[in-house]
Amino acid sequence: MSKSPEGEHPQKAFGWAARDKSGVLSPFNFSIRVNGDNDITIKVLYCGICHTDLHQIKNEWGNSVYPMVPGHEIVGMVTEVGKNVTKVKVGEKAGVGCFVGSCGSCHSCADDLENYCTKQILTYNARYHDGTPTYGGYSDNLVVEEHFVIRFPENLPLDAAAPPLLCAGITVFSPMKYYGLCKPGMSFGVVGLGGLGHVAVKFAKAFGMKVTVISTSLRKKKEAIEHLGADSFLISRDQEEMQAAIGTMDGIIDTVSAFHPLLPLILLLKNHGKLVMVGAPNKPLELPVSPLLFGSGMGGIKETQEMIDFAAKHNITADIEVIPMDYVNTAMERLTKGDVKYRFVIDVANTLTP
Amino acid sequence: MSKSPEGEHPQKAFGWAARDKSGVLSPFNFSIRVNGDNDITIKVLYCGICHTDLHQIKNEWGNSVYPMVPGHEIVGMVTEVGKNVTKVKVGEKAGVGCFVGSCGSCHSCADDLENYCTKQILTYNARYHDGTPTYGGYSDNLVVEEHFVIRFPENLPLDAAAPPLLCAGITVFSPMKYYGLCKPGMSFGVVGLGGLGHVAVKFAKAFGMKVTVISTSLRKKKEAIEHLGADSFLISRDQEEMQAAIGTMDGIIDTVSAFHPLLPLILLLKNHGKLVMVGAPNKPLELPVSPLLFGSGMGGIKETQEMIDFAAKHNITADIEVIPMDYVNTAMERLTKGDVKYRFVIDVANTLTP
Repeated sequence: MSKSPEGEHPQKAFGWAARDKSGVLSPFNFSIRVNGDNDITIKVLYCGICHTDLHQIKNEWGNSVYPMVPGHEIVGMVTEVGKNVTKVKVGEKAGVGCFVGSCGSCHSCADDLENYCTKQILTYNARYHDGTPTYGGYSDNLVVEEHFVIRFPENLPLDAAAPPLLCAGITVFSPMKYYGLCKPGMSFGVVGLGGLGHVAVKFAKAFGMKVTVISTSLRKKKEAIEHLGADSFLISRDQEEMQAAIGTMDGIIDTVSAFHPLLPLILLLKNHGKLVMVGAPNKPLELPVSPLLFGSGMGGIKETQEMIDFAAKHNITADIEVIPMDYVNTAMERLTKGDVKYRFVIDVANTLTP
Repeated sequence: MSKSPEGEHPQKAFGWAARDKSGVLSPFNFSIRVNGDNDITIKVLYCGICHTDLHQIKNEWGNSVYPMVPGHEIVGMVTEVGKNVTKVKVGEKAGVGCFVGSCGSCHSCADDLENYCTKQILTYNARYHDGTPTYGGYSDNLVVEEHFVIRFPENLPLDAAAPPLLCAGITVFSPMKYYGLCKPGMSFGVVGLGGLGHVAVKFAKAFGMKVTVISTSLRKKKEAIEHLGADSFLISRDQEEMQAAIGTMDGIIDTVSAFHPLLPLILLLKNHGKLVMVGAPNKPLELPVSPLLFGSGMGGIKETQEMIDFAAKHNITADIEVIPMDYVNTAMERLTKGDVKYRFVIDVANTLTP
């Protein structure tokens, strides 16, 4: 990992790179660093193509640096390991996902959430610690720090399992686990049946959940039910079907990147149900807040009692202006103008007279 | 609780009612039911004025029935109790909040979440079990089923504490507890310093949190810090202040009903921080999804390994189309059109040739 400002490393490597925002990929010779004490060299066997690759080679996010070798769903064979490496041995299979480095010392890194590290180094279109560009898996060999390498169980087929799971798989698995949407018997919706959606269906079924695929296209029904094992299928434009499903789901994962309404999905949720967004729409979606507040803008009787007891214990009161009953119409006018600090309270007993 | 289709009950009552959507309130004679075995009669002492009352008397939500006696922040003295009542005694103080009835048998009721019961009976502008209208706390007496009455600790001042807490208090307390935003040392933001916001600051301080008030108006700074005890104050339009606070908060409660941007608030949150909306904007807010996905659209290395091991155990693979390296530009074109089921995977080892 010696400093190499010119971006030249001693080992030759070869891949396909985009040279400009046309995004056209073509053969590209580059170099990779010598395998360090904590590094693993991987001979690439398979690499998935992620939608992100498409955005990046065309500079659609405005941060592309060329030449760019894409690919962050990488699986391969270990060909060299540094002397400190314990995770894998030469000859074993290993994977590399979206990032190959992080600061290692921040709160996120300490919590095994390197994906949130602000100094995270992406697998391609980034700069490594030594200032040289990172190149992805559309190439023959990679040198990666041990920490960022994933071991592969022998029974996982390398082509079909590894690449998509390293990106699409973890993208749906992580929030499903985090939000507790992984318990047998739960009712779970998957919106959109693409790369992310079809893997979400498979994980959800493996978790033992009852899975409903929600799609705009009836054409996907057979696929969803017969091939992926979903329990049911909802056409999002079918008012009647959607109406019948209101309030039935513990959670929904929304994998759609196109602009689409959220309220119909929110209405499918039970109380305290969770809608997880993993698609990346290129403009903001509309979040209708008011319909979400029915009921939630209060509490149950038991909790209200708990709140009042807590307030009494901590001496919490509200700031109020006490008014007589016959001031109520004036109070309403002032309330319209926001002219109250903070609440009008009517002194009913002393001022309500027939 | 005898059936009385004409809406006539034996006991006389008196209050102030709105008669039409002008919302003007004026004296109104009506009747209330005889105190039943499970009922409590309350002589109203104080009643808060909620923004909801203002919306309802003017039929702004389109469901108003007149004459309407508003008021759902009610506190009073118990004057009669049914023979089955154990919660309070005659002469004690009691409160009534937003609702006075529910089905008692659904999942929500069983979970002490009567606020989500679909047969919930609101304290006014609703119909009771017997079909008669419910009238609120801008009146002299109420008969309420024991279950929906809140006991009041002696030390809470009846005017300042009770009415606002029964509505504003529980509206902020309930989500703060539900989302775990109630732990000492947490960093907590309160957006908007009105009826809901000022109570949220008080609860947050009582929970031992570090509280930042976020407001458009510098005028509220002194009030927030000196009077309510907030630790700091942010002007939401001050780019520099907002920039400096990015990623610092465990949670934010947004009490603003006016249309406003969410992204600046979301950016203030730490990873996995929570933004709770309790204001009721009358049009949808814009939810920028893509900026939320940085990092979250993946997982940490440890969790990625867990996901891969889970996939191996449950034999989960993705559905893919394996392609040679030199097909990659065609694959990108097909990906643009969504023409892939579900993932392209490049057979790098066998097809990447210099």
